[in-house]
Amino acid sequence: MTPDTLAILMISSGGNWSPAKWKSRLVTACPGRPVMLLPDDAADPARVRYAAVWKPERGALARLPNLEIVFNLGAGVDALLADPAFPRHTTLVRVADQDLTNRMSEYAVFHCLRYHRRHRMLEAAQARGEWLAPDQWAANAVRVGVMGLGVIGSDAATKLKIMGFDVAGWSRTPKSLDGIACFHGPAGLDAFLARTDILVVILPLTPDTRHILNRALFSRLARDGVLGGPILINAGRGGLQNEADVLACLDDGTLQGATLDVFETEPLPADSPFWRHPKVDVTPHNAADTDPDEISRYVARQIAAFEAGRGLANVVDLSTGY
Amino acid sequence: MTPDTLAILMISSGGNWSPAKWKSRLVTACPGRPVMLLPDDAADPARVRYAAVWKPERGALARLPNLEIVFNLGAGVDALLADPAFPRHTTLVRVADQDLTNRMSEYAVFHCLRYHRRHRMLEAAQARGEWLAPDQWAANAVRVGVMGLGVIGSDAATKLKIMGFDVAGWSRTPKSLDGIACFHGPAGLDAFLARTDILVVILPLTPDTRHILNRALFSRLARDGVLGGPILINAGRGGLQNEADVLACLDDGTLQGATLDVFETEPLPADSPFWRHPKVDVTPHNAADTDPDEISRYVARQIAAFEAGRGLANVVDLSTGY
Repeated sequence: MTPDTLAILMISSGGNWSPAKWKSRLVTACPGRPVMLLPDDAADPARVRYAAVWKPERGALARLPNLEIVFNLGAGVDALLADPAFPRHTTLVRVADQDLTNRMSEYAVFHCLRYHRRHRMLEAAQARGEWLAPDQWAANAVRVGVMGLGVIGSDAATKLKIMGFDVAGWSRTPKSLDGIACFHGPAGLDAFLARTDILVVILPLTPDTRHILNRALFSRLARDGVLGGPILINAGRGGLQNEADVLACLDDGTLQGATLDVFETEPLPADSPFWRHPKVDVTPHNAADTDPDEISRYVARQIAAFEAGRGLANVVDLSTGY
Repeated sequence: MTPDTLAILMISSGGNWSPAKWKSRLVTACPGRPVMLLPDDAADPARVRYAAVWKPERGALARLPNLEIVFNLGAGVDALLADPAFPRHTTLVRVADQDLTNRMSEYAVFHCLRYHRRHRMLEAAQARGEWLAPDQWAANAVRVGVMGLGVIGSDAATKLKIMGFDVAGWSRTPKSLDGIACFHGPAGLDAFLARTDILVVILPLTPDTRHILNRALFSRLARDGVLGGPILINAGRGGLQNEADVLACLDDGTLQGATLDVFETEPLPADSPFWRHPKVDVTPHNAADTDPDEISRYVARQIAAFEAGRGLANVVDLSTGY
């Protein structure tokens, strides 16, 4: 029998993200398609042509002999590619739908505005009952630098620009975005960092980017901006940051503040100094919560396009890891 | 001698907003033009053709017999028109430059995102050291209603839409904005309010709009939205809101929260219950701080355009008061 089944492989998780709910959604999104949960459902592994996965058990995908396409149910594929048994002959597709993209841009714009509009200072003034209107510059006085200019980073950079910020971007390979100074590669990094007051990081985690956010990088950020010191906003992956360096740089003033959505260990351990650090805002890896219904429809659309010979979008290049 | 002088009339204020600094900026912006401070500078009132004003002494403008054009150094002209001796034969121009407009949009987008992204809840979770990722909907699940669709309100509505919110607008007269449901007049108010989760108010203060933000209006806002109850963001004028109603509606749940930049009395008195109300965010009338250098250049550009016969922009209609 021709392989036609969509298998779901994921770590067990609660609430909206439970495997059973994913199955029910994908059944609805893919009418007529056999959908099974692995390893729960008894099924012939040879019938599996597609897999929808989130941090599956290591080695599990390698046991599906006719697997052709793997849909990662999130934007970052670093956890998946860390499995040495990942079947590299398959096509790996990641989620980069408009919903996820919009949410990441919301996060970037919100947190940049929060620093720019001096909201912490205003909150503290309110708590004291003090009518304190500090100097307020226009957004174009603030230089935001977006690291990572894929679909998501480009959208964030464009929206930050629309909000008035002076935006630049940096990416591994050359990109071009309207009204945004684009830098690329190791050679472009210095100039990019030197004109950045707020660094917004939306990079994938790859062997090249692990711990790219370290003291050497922070110390190259602009120090002459209106904000009084550089700010880090990491909405990419925890593995991008050297956390000891982040803390030390906050403490010695190399960084003025950090908003972190991602951490080397998640959930962030109770004894992490980030929780109560006065210069750190912690968010619980929810910068771009994805809507499981949207993702299910996205997977269904991609399968339909593939079977109609129209090809797949957002295919991961296994040589670069994103 | 032909009247040619630009006179500055304003309440004395400190820092960047001192009359002396305005004089120096306007001298720079208008080379060759006589610029005087009234009442400080000894000068012939008959030579004054233009006035740049911010809350001038009542009756002061009426003493300038050849005054033709009054530039209000802010967007709201309500304080000026409250002077019964305001010379109504003059042309009144208000500031509505891109800088001020951008800043108001920053405020609107920031505070809408703050509610939408549940930032208060996330801050409280961080303070407890709790990794709590509450359900997060997409911005298009949140219905923002912008009251006031002049230059500033239209820009705010457009940027809120770009950020993904489901945006509608309401104005006294009909307007049309791409992708934004526009309602108008008393007849359109009910339908507008009934689909509004976050009400962003950027109205001018006129006899028609005084205390328009009252219990009757709040009780018509949507109650079926994802936010769990309606939110008020007032960035217009304090006189728009009945403050006793705002407080009572927050306390009985008719409003879920309020972000107020403006108040009936400013600075907000130390004994105001707004300061420490758990559902209120107070900002110190700085939603759209204007850049005095930008405004000075704006006045200079307008005078140059007027003298070249190209007319004036942002002229106030004295019959409507904005």
